[in-house]
Amino acid sequence: MMKAELVMIGTELLLGETVDTNAAYLAQELAALGIDLYYKSTVGDNWIRMIEVITQALARSDLVIVSGGLGPTIDDLTREAVAAVANLPLELNTEAMEMIEAYFRQSNRTMSENNRKQAFLPRGARIIPNHWGTAPGLIVHIRDKAIIALPGVPRELKGMFAAYVSPYLESRIEVKQTLISRTLKFAGIGESKLAEMVEDELNCQSNPTVAPYASLGEVKLRITAKAGSRERALEMIHPVERRLIQKLNPYYFGADQETLESVVGTLLRERNETLAVAESCTGGLIANRITDVPGSSDYFERGYITYSNQAKVELLNVNPELIDKYGAVSRDVAAAMAEGAQAGAKTDWSLAVTGIAGPSGGTSEKPVGLVYIAVSGKGNTKTKQFRFNGTRTEIKFLVSQAALNFLRLEIQGVR
Amino acid sequence: MMKAELVMIGTELLLGETVDTNAAYLAQELAALGIDLYYKSTVGDNWIRMIEVITQALARSDLVIVSGGLGPTIDDLTREAVAAVANLPLELNTEAMEMIEAYFRQSNRTMSENNRKQAFLPRGARIIPNHWGTAPGLIVHIRDKAIIALPGVPRELKGMFAAYVSPYLESRIEVKQTLISRTLKFAGIGESKLAEMVEDELNCQSNPTVAPYASLGEVKLRITAKAGSRERALEMIHPVERRLIQKLNPYYFGADQETLESVVGTLLRERNETLAVAESCTGGLIANRITDVPGSSDYFERGYITYSNQAKVELLNVNPELIDKYGAVSRDVAAAMAEGAQAGAKTDWSLAVTGIAGPSGGTSEKPVGLVYIAVSGKGNTKTKQFRFNGTRTEIKFLVSQAALNFLRLEIQGVR
Repeated sequence: MMKAELVMIGTELLLGETVDTNAAYLAQELAALGIDLYYKSTVGDNWIRMIEVITQALARSDLVIVSGGLGPTIDDLTREAVAAVANLPLELNTEAMEMIEAYFRQSNRTMSENNRKQAFLPRGARIIPNHWGTAPGLIVHIRDKAIIALPGVPRELKGMFAAYVSPYLESRIEVKQTLISRTLKFAGIGESKLAEMVEDELNCQSNPTVAPYASLGEVKLRITAKAGSRERALEMIHPVERRLIQKLNPYYFGADQETLESVVGTLLRERNETLAVAESCTGGLIANRITDVPGSSDYFERGYITYSNQAKVELLNVNPELIDKYGAVSRDVAAAMAEGAQAGAKTDWSLAVTGIAGPSGGTSEKPVGLVYIAVSGKGNTKTKQFRFNGTRTEIKFLVSQAALNFLRLEIQGVR
Repeated sequence: MMKAELVMIGTELLLGETVDTNAAYLAQELAALGIDLYYKSTVGDNWIRMIEVITQALARSDLVIVSGGLGPTIDDLTREAVAAVANLPLELNTEAMEMIEAYFRQSNRTMSENNRKQAFLPRGARIIPNHWGTAPGLIVHIRDKAIIALPGVPRELKGMFAAYVSPYLESRIEVKQTLISRTLKFAGIGESKLAEMVEDELNCQSNPTVAPYASLGEVKLRITAKAGSRERALEMIHPVERRLIQKLNPYYFGADQETLESVVGTLLRERNETLAVAESCTGGLIANRITDVPGSSDYFERGYITYSNQAKVELLNVNPELIDKYGAVSRDVAAAMAEGAQAGAKTDWSLAVTGIAGPSGGTSEKPVGLVYIAVSGKGNTKTKQFRFNGTRTEIKFLVSQAALNFLRLEIQGVR
């Protein structure tokens, strides 16, 4: 089995100015290819430490994927570092040069002198075309090992990996054992409680293994099987998956790439039903998540972001007396918002939230994190009260998560 | 100067199921404390490799911060690994036990048997209280070095670092030289072009240094100075900052933690002006970004997410003939949306977008990524056409970025 290692280059990563989404992407792609990833290292744009980390990676792994440092500025040292580790001279690669020139022609921009530097590559390097930016990637073979260098800009890295690196790796690996994972996702339950409910499955740590982990507003169980083929691994995963879902229903909402918004979308599409949302404290986040799903225009009709009381009254027909009597953050106003949204948009379903996202605006009676969520559909309106802790953006996310999960359960008819 | 290293534990990080936001947070905090961070390593929940990486980190750095693996399940091995590297026995820590019990009492949940495991810590470890979850953190001293272990759940890690770890580190470091960075942010310009415009500043790589880097929809210049005090470092940064902003005006929009949404918010607040948005292809993302800013309810009145043509007509008073004649994705409809939003919400400004986010829905005449943005205010409406490339979510983000930047320039009166 091929062992891979990631080396992420960039002082901005060590200063915390950039969240490293490339690492997660590359890790997912390697797992899908059945390539084991045991280590990931991050270093700044520093010549000595880059050489040290790439050398160590090459010593303990078969495949080293370096991301970042291929840009046009003098900070960008990855071409030089790979050449040094591989003991190859750097030279002008005419193929790379032509690609860079073509990129500038195509995007109607003038090429700057700096960009020439991006065509100087280790001798004999195989070029990975970059249709999304100026920096070509490269593959260098060292004995039976390889270093692949890709730019750090996420869309360039992802585009190049999918189009060129993935097929290249697939052609090179002799698949002996594949590691296949499936991640089940749960909402409305904490990690400890969930782990306790399925403790017997977690302690059976042979093959497949089951591991729990929590992220904001959801808990996941990852089932991983090792087998001689993808099909065999999936056969081993399926019974475990069925048992877990059965035990943890109705917290289970989806698997792998599925999200609450994609699951809600699938449910609506299957039923040929439509949705409108009315948001106060989430300020558009719920609609944004729903419309992140391709094709969501088929079921998502509109959203009302009624931040002011005036907007709640004018757009959603909320009775101002309700707001005076119970306050904008109340069960009654949430219900009125949902009903107003459904009536206005003439949709099958509507979802409304009103709450206090903080950090200010809370009182002892209505603290930061207090939220009311309402779902209208099938001729009735249901409401729920929640209380969340966290920063403003965390609370917004937790509310969107609870709201989408509430809507999912209502559409599925689970009460 | 203290050298720190991060060790992130979690198989989910190497399977790419989680994006590591903790690393960026910790890196920022260490930079703010003037502690150099040279390496970050990530390993799975694997006993051998955890020991290997923590041992290496302790050999080359003074301070090792380990994140993850403190949970209640049998996968969670960080307590054991730190004890092994430090050559200390693991024992029940009654102080930690009481904290865990108190946490469960407070949050009205029943403690599971698994959680007891979280109170077994290396002998003599100093405890870091966790008010946000069940896992206490720990500090272990090994000769003149230290290992700090924190849970991997971002809100727990962040809460504990801010409340306990940061003050602890501040008390321990003798500040001799501080490294202070300031990041200037630019929109509406590419990295190469920007680098060329300020090439002389970039090549003066002494102290302070200036380094460019690009992320989706913006370019940044990081100015970093080393000096005996924070004040002296800032004095060194200021003249460079002034020159860069002067040369790159009007692309410059803010620095450090500032975002386009926070800058737009500040501009509106200063002018005591209000805003409404009307979104089609961004589906709530612009409103969501605006309302991520604390206090945004002072100037953000409402948002219309008019995904369907019907919603554009009903909520924004867009003339259906305009849609028939030019299509929903057109300059005229963008302008009508902005005008309708401003009239309906009675705000000083409005921002409207209509476009094709993809991946489907494009035609040769109106391809995926074609977007029209309109800003209304001060008695007139301006529109711009853009063409973006990327995935659906990338295009949504690029549109939100261009829209907020367009609004910023209009409010600032830059034409």
